[in-house]
Amino acid sequence: MNKTFGVNPFTAPPPLGCAVDTPEPCALVIFGASGDLTKRKLIPSLYRLFKNRLLPPGFFVLGTGRTEMPSERFREVLLAGLRESLTEECDEACWRDFASLLHYQSMEYQNPQDYVATLAGRLSSLEQDMGSGGNRIYYLATPPTVYENIFTNLGRAGLSTGEGGSVKIVIEKPFGNDLASAQKLNKTLLAFFREEQIFRIDHYLAKETVQNILMFRFANSLFEPLWNRRYIDHIQITAAETLGIEQRAGYYEAAGVLRDMFQNHIFQLLALTALEPPATFSAPRVRDEKAKLFQSVRPFPLDRPDDCAVIGQYGRGSIDGKEVAGYREEAGVAPDSRTPTYAALKVFIDNWRWQGVPFYLRSGKRLAARRTEIAISYRSVPHLMFSRAMAGGIEPNTLLLRVQPDEGITLEIQAKNPGSRVCLTPVSLDFSYPREVELDAYEWVLLSCMEGDQMLFVRGDGVDLSWGLLTPLIEQLESKGATDLPTYTAGTDGPMAAAQLLEKDGRKWRPL
Amino acid sequence: MNKTFGVNPFTAPPPLGCAVDTPEPCALVIFGASGDLTKRKLIPSLYRLFKNRLLPPGFFVLGTGRTEMPSERFREVLLAGLRESLTEECDEACWRDFASLLHYQSMEYQNPQDYVATLAGRLSSLEQDMGSGGNRIYYLATPPTVYENIFTNLGRAGLSTGEGGSVKIVIEKPFGNDLASAQKLNKTLLAFFREEQIFRIDHYLAKETVQNILMFRFANSLFEPLWNRRYIDHIQITAAETLGIEQRAGYYEAAGVLRDMFQNHIFQLLALTALEPPATFSAPRVRDEKAKLFQSVRPFPLDRPDDCAVIGQYGRGSIDGKEVAGYREEAGVAPDSRTPTYAALKVFIDNWRWQGVPFYLRSGKRLAARRTEIAISYRSVPHLMFSRAMAGGIEPNTLLLRVQPDEGITLEIQAKNPGSRVCLTPVSLDFSYPREVELDAYEWVLLSCMEGDQMLFVRGDGVDLSWGLLTPLIEQLESKGATDLPTYTAGTDGPMAAAQLLEKDGRKWRPL
Repeated sequence: MNKTFGVNPFTAPPPLGCAVDTPEPCALVIFGASGDLTKRKLIPSLYRLFKNRLLPPGFFVLGTGRTEMPSERFREVLLAGLRESLTEECDEACWRDFASLLHYQSMEYQNPQDYVATLAGRLSSLEQDMGSGGNRIYYLATPPTVYENIFTNLGRAGLSTGEGGSVKIVIEKPFGNDLASAQKLNKTLLAFFREEQIFRIDHYLAKETVQNILMFRFANSLFEPLWNRRYIDHIQITAAETLGIEQRAGYYEAAGVLRDMFQNHIFQLLALTALEPPATFSAPRVRDEKAKLFQSVRPFPLDRPDDCAVIGQYGRGSIDGKEVAGYREEAGVAPDSRTPTYAALKVFIDNWRWQGVPFYLRSGKRLAARRTEIAISYRSVPHLMFSRAMAGGIEPNTLLLRVQPDEGITLEIQAKNPGSRVCLTPVSLDFSYPREVELDAYEWVLLSCMEGDQMLFVRGDGVDLSWGLLTPLIEQLESKGATDLPTYTAGTDGPMAAAQLLEKDGRKWRPL
Repeated sequence: MNKTFGVNPFTAPPPLGCAVDTPEPCALVIFGASGDLTKRKLIPSLYRLFKNRLLPPGFFVLGTGRTEMPSERFREVLLAGLRESLTEECDEACWRDFASLLHYQSMEYQNPQDYVATLAGRLSSLEQDMGSGGNRIYYLATPPTVYENIFTNLGRAGLSTGEGGSVKIVIEKPFGNDLASAQKLNKTLLAFFREEQIFRIDHYLAKETVQNILMFRFANSLFEPLWNRRYIDHIQITAAETLGIEQRAGYYEAAGVLRDMFQNHIFQLLALTALEPPATFSAPRVRDEKAKLFQSVRPFPLDRPDDCAVIGQYGRGSIDGKEVAGYREEAGVAPDSRTPTYAALKVFIDNWRWQGVPFYLRSGKRLAARRTEIAISYRSVPHLMFSRAMAGGIEPNTLLLRVQPDEGITLEIQAKNPGSRVCLTPVSLDFSYPREVELDAYEWVLLSCMEGDQMLFVRGDGVDLSWGLLTPLIEQLESKGATDLPTYTAGTDGPMAAAQLLEKDGRKWRPL
């Protein structure tokens, strides 16, 4: 084991300017290291962090998995994965230095002995060699079915508490698939780990624009005074994909769009958009406000689910001029599947700020465009002094927080139509994030965890609360007949019923 | 006289889209037609309107002046002027058609008989030929010294009231040079014309962005709720020029910057920015609100003029890397001239909306940049939840109404610094007017007058009120010694004292 490697990542100052703190040295133990997520996401993100000198000295990776292989083979597999996922040329010298930090240990996750002997031993030995100071991050990149095994066996092996170092555990989504399973998972996890050690990932929270929502709201004096029922007519939150389910039929058939997108991502966007100002911009205070917000969400009216929810499943259609299969024709999907791939919800928040303001949430696969955005629709002007020239009324203002693909902020306002006398035209004030400096979501996740900042992660009560809100609705919808699951043509804006959900209220979805 | 000409301006629909109304047929009588303004501004603007088919059928121009010349010579002079002022190639065929609408009549403005016989006769005969229906616009492009002669002689000759047609009179600035002279001018004017016939030009009002201020404020629900003392810290109105006095020493020596820029343009910008919502977007109601606003402006504290006013005169310096002369070295300027070429004023408006909010106004020649803008500076956020990461405080939001050179709207806000953890950076949301569709200020003035829309013109009470506010201050400043007129280097942001005017209040001018 070579303790010194060519590039000292801290000889140069961090290139990204202010406030990317230097994390403490640490070991990253990946469970499920022979899997796809490690190869396609974790290692490429770690490589970029390494290349940008953002990893701490003494850092190393110990990958674990059932597959038997030497570390050398592990690195070969990862290099192949890296080459596929990098958009730029792989820097071979940089890779060689980085690869010396990558190690592999095979083990059986069900076998307690493998934790006590194999894992603990290997980890101690590497920590000695690398000087990572006993700080450990366990990253669960396995299927959720083995989560509880890993929590328990780590705990029983005495690996959930640090000996001189900090111990953290990172858990990928999905975290449970309903209220009961999430509560059970939290219970097992909390039997061995304290909440401060637990990093439940929500990839949306790690996007720049999502991180920006709170700064945007609370670092500007211009928006917050109008951020309430008196000035806002309604809010639309959209997470639209053009992709189908790709290779994930097994997972998706059981999950469906409400579990896959709403319980986590969309509800997080909802919380950040609607929460009250926290006292400080810190993970505990922001998570307190999120919990308070979820507690204020009006329970869905289960006796009249049509009033608040529309689901749908994509049929055949075309995306970007290419014919695509319907959901039931996808490999691994039951030909009579009743799994929804689209949902639209109407949510009310019962507090002083939001009483009477509907939040319309929608997400789906195989839609007309890939776009995630939060659209704040302000009320109309109270008095139309321009009436002579404008019989049709004036379009209300909209503030658009664009999460993807083109991250930024747009303000849609009315201005004088140039060259005409008294005529208004909608114009956009735009700001787009410069792309080159962004860290991707996994880089944020890894860095934040190393730094012990839980801001981008979901607290246990938040998981329970959002499952608590959605589970009864999901069960109600799943108990309905197959006739209640309309099909929408792939490449469109979703089922007609979703449009009608807003039309009933005299409103319209923003076009995708 | 050829009644039919090649192009019928109304065979095609107006190219500019909505709401450029078709004016009624009319005659445009220009007084001072052999002068510079006619050649450089009026005729080129009329030519563009003609080319864009915005002039009514039956329209014609009768130029008058002391110079004796046939109409043919008049057209030659104008064509030469047009070629100089057009940025694009002159369309010869279009010019020929347009030139057939241009006529000339020499007369003595002091001689009443010339109105009764010469002018009235020629006008009637052309009206018969052209079919302009007796609608007349008198456009005073003469020096202000002959204004009263023309008002009086037109009135006494019976030319100020229409016989079957409408009669309007357009008056160039300056309208008076203090309160007494403006009142006298208004009195003579109103002895023969009704206020509804009078179009007092303020060229700033005819700029797109200035016209847009009211639409921007009252067609958007997002800005007006914050448009008051509770949310706005202060407002800066800037009209900065890089030009010196050019060939206008005679006029400028007597006027100075307060008469030249503040009484009219800057005060109009102030009024549009600060006025209360009018009941309708119509000239009478908007002018009522402007008058109300001027009535609410706190009189300047004449015993302490330094508290509210800074003046200055440009010395030698450099503009765009080129050495330029100081004001006192300019041709036609007295070597000990005490005429100010820069002024900064601090204005308070004593009403519910603006109590305690300072309006800082500044204008000057030979400054660092050519820029006219209104900057709304909002208050700071009430609570800094990000304090850990931001010791220096957060820059407050600014809304920028950009009048020239790049007309548009900018909103300066704070957003997350991409790639960093908890760091804010100022970003701009921008909108710029597309340049190609704009009408220039003279086109707006001419069209609006033909259409009888007084929105872009100043009402008599507005002139009196703004002179009433400024005259005592001007007199106070003029009575001070020459030592009180600081010199500023050409090409800079103005005198130091102007910076100190804001520094005393803990604020700063926006850099030019």
